[in-house]
Amino acid sequence: MNTSVTSPRRTLSASPFLAAARGERPERLPVWFMRQAGRSLPEYRALRADTSMMQACLDPELTCEITLQPVRRHGVDAAILFSDIVVPLYAAGIGVDIVPGTGPVVASPVRTAADVENLPMLAAAQVAPVTDAVALLLRALGETPLIGFAGAPFTLASYLVEGGPSRNHERTKALMYSAPEVWHALMAHLAQLTATFLEAQVEAGVDAVQLFDSWAGALSERDYRRFVLPHSASVLDRIRDVPRFHFGVGTGSLLGAMAEAGADVIGVDWRTPLDVGSQRAGGLPVQGNLDPAVLFADVDSVAAETRRIVAEGRRAPSHVFNLGHGVLPGTDPDMITRTVDLVHSL
Amino acid sequence: MNTSVTSPRRTLSASPFLAAARGERPERLPVWFMRQAGRSLPEYRALRADTSMMQACLDPELTCEITLQPVRRHGVDAAILFSDIVVPLYAAGIGVDIVPGTGPVVASPVRTAADVENLPMLAAAQVAPVTDAVALLLRALGETPLIGFAGAPFTLASYLVEGGPSRNHERTKALMYSAPEVWHALMAHLAQLTATFLEAQVEAGVDAVQLFDSWAGALSERDYRRFVLPHSASVLDRIRDVPRFHFGVGTGSLLGAMAEAGADVIGVDWRTPLDVGSQRAGGLPVQGNLDPAVLFADVDSVAAETRRIVAEGRRAPSHVFNLGHGVLPGTDPDMITRTVDLVHSL
Repeated sequence: MNTSVTSPRRTLSASPFLAAARGERPERLPVWFMRQAGRSLPEYRALRADTSMMQACLDPELTCEITLQPVRRHGVDAAILFSDIVVPLYAAGIGVDIVPGTGPVVASPVRTAADVENLPMLAAAQVAPVTDAVALLLRALGETPLIGFAGAPFTLASYLVEGGPSRNHERTKALMYSAPEVWHALMAHLAQLTATFLEAQVEAGVDAVQLFDSWAGALSERDYRRFVLPHSASVLDRIRDVPRFHFGVGTGSLLGAMAEAGADVIGVDWRTPLDVGSQRAGGLPVQGNLDPAVLFADVDSVAAETRRIVAEGRRAPSHVFNLGHGVLPGTDPDMITRTVDLVHSL
Repeated sequence: MNTSVTSPRRTLSASPFLAAARGERPERLPVWFMRQAGRSLPEYRALRADTSMMQACLDPELTCEITLQPVRRHGVDAAILFSDIVVPLYAAGIGVDIVPGTGPVVASPVRTAADVENLPMLAAAQVAPVTDAVALLLRALGETPLIGFAGAPFTLASYLVEGGPSRNHERTKALMYSAPEVWHALMAHLAQLTATFLEAQVEAGVDAVQLFDSWAGALSERDYRRFVLPHSASVLDRIRDVPRFHFGVGTGSLLGAMAEAGADVIGVDWRTPLDVGSQRAGGLPVQGNLDPAVLFADVDSVAAETRRIVAEGRRAPSHVFNLGHGVLPGTDPDMITRTVDLVHSL
């Protein structure tokens, strides 16, 4: 975590979030929420009324404002750049759109060696709207750290191969098994593209990065190690100046392999207790892991679960409080604010 | 597994499926496929052209024919009654329909103590079309065993509380946490209803039963034990004359708890190796666990995965070969037939 001379990197030595990411135990337990910027907030829905998701991700002023909203409202200890995991694909010129109610839809699915060869590579300049948003945010955020992020190669590959969101990933897995050389070429391409995207964010000054492998949990550990780990590792190896968070859902049996791929902090979903998750990840600091569905329960239940998780996090080297997955659309934002306040009081 | 005097129970002492379910190692490794009867078969799609799913489940002749189709085509070692997990709810008079492309849709979601009190109970006579289908099947199947099944209380509860299929089960979990007494009343009702449905099938002569807790994998072990286990146990305790298979997807961390709830054979999805799954389930025989998506790969890859799984199954007390989840709609039926042949040759 050396700061290079030319980087706008901030020190933020008082940040509890960055201290916990280094494995320290700050006085205040840091907390942020995956998808804290977005659909749960009325001020977000108002801003997005006439704007597509992709427009919002590629308009620096709008991205900055949406990223700031949950920091203002909830007092969380970190902002996460408002974006979508398919943004770097779109920026590279791959035909993909985010369709409301469906998710990312890919114009021409990628299934052959020729398809992979024809994929454009991302140049850092193509994500200038994102890095411009980072620059605006660094000024606006004051002492609050900014987390950059990217989707991991497997999750991106699944969108490209399936042509959109998929429950069973059957075409993706068929490609892995039937044409491993095509699969590895695709994954190597996406790893390069993802690393370029993350490096651009780091160079622009984000204080940490999170690699989201949303769908890694669809894989056995055996398949993750053969088909995914080397490529996620090649992304994470390229990130050296800021702490790296590595997260996926349903990854209870993959935490060791995901830690090996690279992580300073391992994200744990609600199915695995944080102390167990840390052990499986070779003793890493942990992030998580309140079940986002629990935020729909009553105040006392949410508080009890929060306290349990904080206690389990104390048995790991350090802990960044978060959900075990993203904020669900119908979540009451006041429940999030209350939870932040409770975490800070513990 | 005593046979009562009045039951039409068959002995089928030569059945490899029943031998493996008893923990023996039959000469031929038994194999069947979850959802083997259904959408992957052209002869099924032809039969269903003018018939709704619910009609097909409540027409004994049609149910019988659909159940037989995969036995004829693939030569599997067991038939599974063609049905749907919401059939007993519908039969009891709960307003539920199976909407093509969506799944079960519930007319009036169940979310309060009054809603639970108003739920009708199932009488065995109400599932006469199902038990009539069992009677037809016993005559038609010859030496091939017939598996009865039911959805587990948690999975049924999620449909009733959410009003339909749900990705995050937020209303279900909110009810568990916020109103545990309402939750437990609902689960107790569904356990009674499910036991009645399974007992009716056993009395009609099915040779084994499988309890499908499709969505148990959405829960942490802690929540499974508190909110689900006692109710699944009360169902499984009632089944004494035939072997009980207990299965859910994404249940790698729940296998021990699911075994405690009751199982003679534990079903394991593709994420957990069979030998590991057996250990976690306290040394039970296992069923599984080819990834259904792998059937979309080439013949050699499917064969290699099949051989690996058979080898891992040899390290459990006994093994019923199956998928790690149901057959996916676009699966090539010839790949299923080939896999059956390969398993039988190993």
